[in-house]
Amino acid sequence: MSWIAYYSRHFLFLGGVKMCECKYMQLALENAKKGVGFVNPNPMVGAVIVKNGKIIGEGYHKKYGGLHAERNALNNCSENPKDATMYVTLEPCCHYGKTPPCTDAIIENKIKKVVIASLDPNPKMSGKSLDILKKRGIKVEKGLLENEGDKLNETFRKFITTKKPFVLFKYAMTMDGKIATKINESKWITGEEARLNVQKTRHKYSGIMVGVDTVIIDNPMLNCKIENGLNPIRIICDTNLRTPIGSKIVSTAKEIPTIIATCSDDEIKKEQYIEKGCEILQIKIKKKKIDLQDLMSKLGEKKIDSILLEGGATLAWSAFERGIVDKIQAYIAPKIFGGNGKTAVLGEGIDFPKDAIMLKNSEIFRFGDDFMIESDVTYKCSQE
Amino acid sequence: MSWIAYYSRHFLFLGGVKMCECKYMQLALENAKKGVGFVNPNPMVGAVIVKNGKIIGEGYHKKYGGLHAERNALNNCSENPKDATMYVTLEPCCHYGKTPPCTDAIIENKIKKVVIASLDPNPKMSGKSLDILKKRGIKVEKGLLENEGDKLNETFRKFITTKKPFVLFKYAMTMDGKIATKINESKWITGEEARLNVQKTRHKYSGIMVGVDTVIIDNPMLNCKIENGLNPIRIICDTNLRTPIGSKIVSTAKEIPTIIATCSDDEIKKEQYIEKGCEILQIKIKKKKIDLQDLMSKLGEKKIDSILLEGGATLAWSAFERGIVDKIQAYIAPKIFGGNGKTAVLGEGIDFPKDAIMLKNSEIFRFGDDFMIESDVTYKCSQE
Repeated sequence: MSWIAYYSRHFLFLGGVKMCECKYMQLALENAKKGVGFVNPNPMVGAVIVKNGKIIGEGYHKKYGGLHAERNALNNCSENPKDATMYVTLEPCCHYGKTPPCTDAIIENKIKKVVIASLDPNPKMSGKSLDILKKRGIKVEKGLLENEGDKLNETFRKFITTKKPFVLFKYAMTMDGKIATKINESKWITGEEARLNVQKTRHKYSGIMVGVDTVIIDNPMLNCKIENGLNPIRIICDTNLRTPIGSKIVSTAKEIPTIIATCSDDEIKKEQYIEKGCEILQIKIKKKKIDLQDLMSKLGEKKIDSILLEGGATLAWSAFERGIVDKIQAYIAPKIFGGNGKTAVLGEGIDFPKDAIMLKNSEIFRFGDDFMIESDVTYKCSQE
Repeated sequence: MSWIAYYSRHFLFLGGVKMCECKYMQLALENAKKGVGFVNPNPMVGAVIVKNGKIIGEGYHKKYGGLHAERNALNNCSENPKDATMYVTLEPCCHYGKTPPCTDAIIENKIKKVVIASLDPNPKMSGKSLDILKKRGIKVEKGLLENEGDKLNETFRKFITTKKPFVLFKYAMTMDGKIATKINESKWITGEEARLNVQKTRHKYSGIMVGVDTVIIDNPMLNCKIENGLNPIRIICDTNLRTPIGSKIVSTAKEIPTIIATCSDDEIKKEQYIEKGCEILQIKIKKKKIDLQDLMSKLGEKKIDSILLEGGATLAWSAFERGIVDKIQAYIAPKIFGGNGKTAVLGEGIDFPKDAIMLKNSEIFRFGDDFMIESDVTYKCSQE
C-alpha cells in the first residue's frame, strides 16, 4: 500500500471515530428539537442509543407530562440495549416528577456508557445524576456539543434558575431603522421567509406580549399561523385597562388564553374582560406603569417559561430599562422608507452613547432577501 | 499504485491547473487593489506574467497618469517575457492616453496569451483590444474572476458610462435604528475596526459630501485620518450659503480642496468663501433645493468619479429621491439607544411599504462587534 493510501485510510479511521460521537449527539439534538413548543416549561431533550456502532434506538421528549427522551429511546430499541451507549442532550433526571427517574431506566437496562451534552441547569441537580450512574459502574462523559445543548434550552435555563420567563424581543425594521412608514403602515417590512420564522417562534414560545397601544392601533390576533402550531398565551400590558372590548384579541379570548396585566382597580371593567374569557393579572405599579419585574414573577408562577415581546416601542424601552429582555431578534429588510417613521425602541432612551443597552454574542441569519441579527442583552448592573 | 493514491494524484493534478489560473488572477486582483485611492478617475488594474509555470513579473497601476499595470509588469520581468502568459484584471488599453497603448507593449514583448477578468466598460472600447491582440496571433481569454474584476472597479464603471460619480451612502446606526441619541450625541456608535474601515473608504473615494446642517451641527473635518491616506474633496450641499465661515472645513479649505454647491446669488458671501480657499459651484434649483442630478453632472465634469455621502438624513432622502445613490453601507452596532433619536434617512419618505426604495445584492461584513451591510440601490424607473 502506498503512503497516500495508508495515510488516507488511517486518517479516515481516526476521523471516523470522532465524527461518529459528534454525529450521534447531533442526531440527539435534532431529535430534541422535535419537541419544540410542546414541552414547555420542560426542556427539549433528545436521545440516541448505539450498540456495536449501530443506532438501535432514538427518542425525544414529546410533550409536557409525557415520557422523557431516555425512556422513549429505550422503548424504541430494536434490540436489547444492554452494554450500549446512550447519547442524551441533557443530564438525565434522578427524581420522581410526572414520570419516574430516568437514571433508574438507564441502570435497569444495563446501559454501559452515557454521553451527555449539557448538565441540568437546576442548581439542585447539576451533576447529581452523573454521580448516581457512576456509582453503579456506568461510564459517564459530559460536554459533547455542550454549547449547542445549552443554547437549545436557553429559555428553560433562565426559567429554572430564576423562576421568571425568558424574554425575546422581536422586531422588523428597514435598513434605515424604521418599523413603520411615517403614516404607521408596516405591512409588510420583511418577506415571507422571515415572517414564517416569526410564526415558528410564536409556536416555540409559551407567551406573546404587547402593549395596549399595539392592540388599539394594529388590532392583531397574535396567534400562531402555521399548521399544527401552538398559540402562545397572549399577554397585554394595560396599566389603565384601555384594551378595546371589541378587539380581536378580547373577542377570541375564550379560544386562545389571554391575560390582561393591569394596575387598575376598576372592578366593573375587569368583570367585562373576564366575561369575554380574559384573565386579569393585578400587577404592582412603578413609575405610573406596570412593574414589569412583578409581571414576570407572576407569569413565572403560572409556569410561563418564555415570552415573545412583539412591541410596541415604548413597552420595549420599559422592558430594557427594567432588565427583563434576555435576547433580541432584529429582522432587517433591504429597503429604505425615509421620513419620520417609528423605530423599534422609543420611550425615554439614553442621552450618551456610552450609556447604551449593550448586546453581545450577535449572530446573523438570512431569510430570503432579509437578514436577522440575534443578540443576547447584557445589563451593566442587576436590575432587581 | 493503489486506486486511492492514483485518484489522489490525478485529482490533485487536475485541481492544480484550474487552481493556478485562478490563483494568478487572484494575485493580479490583489496587485490592482494597491492602487486604491491613487488612480481615480482611472480604474485599478493589476497584472501577473507567468512563464513555464513560474511568475516572472507583476505590476499594477500605481497612480493617475503613471504607467499602466501591463507595462509595469513587463518592466518588472525577471526574464524575457516572450511566449509568456499575462493575467490582467481589465482589458488592456489600445489608445494613446497619458501613456502609449498597452496592446503595443504586449505585442512587442511577444506575449503568447492574455487572460483578462473584465472587459473595459467604456462602450467605445469593450472588447476592441482583444480583437487587436487576436489579429496578431495572441491567444485571448476573458472572464476569469470577472465578477471580482467588475466589483473592484464599480466606481470606474459608473463614471465611464454615465460621466457622473458613483455615490456610496454610508451611515452607522444602533440595532434600534438610531444614528444619534435623542440629544444628538453620536460619538461613538460603532467600534474602532468599523471606524477604521470608514477611513479606508474615505481614502478610496474622490469626494465626500454632506449637507450644510451636518457642518453646522457636527463641525466635522471630513478628512482621511489614516497614515498616507488621501483626503477626498469635500463637498457641502448648501442651497442658501449657510456654511459657517468659522467652521473647520472652511478654515482648512486652503489645505484640503473644498467645494460649496449652492443656488444662492449672494456674490458678497461667495467671495468670503473663495477667499478662504473654497470653490463655489453654482447649481440649478429643484424643489427649493440644490438639484442633485445637476450637481452630479458638474462634479463629473471635474473628474470626480466617486462620492462618499455621509449625511445628514434629509440630504440622504433627497439623494435617494433623485436617484443618485448607487450603494449603501449600513454599519450596525449591537446596542440600543431607545428614545427619539434620528434615523439615517428622513426627509419626506414614503407612505406605503410597497413604495420603499429597494436594495439588492446585500452582503454582510463584520468589523469587531459591529456588522456592516452593503447593498446596491435599485430604482423602479429612471430618475433622469
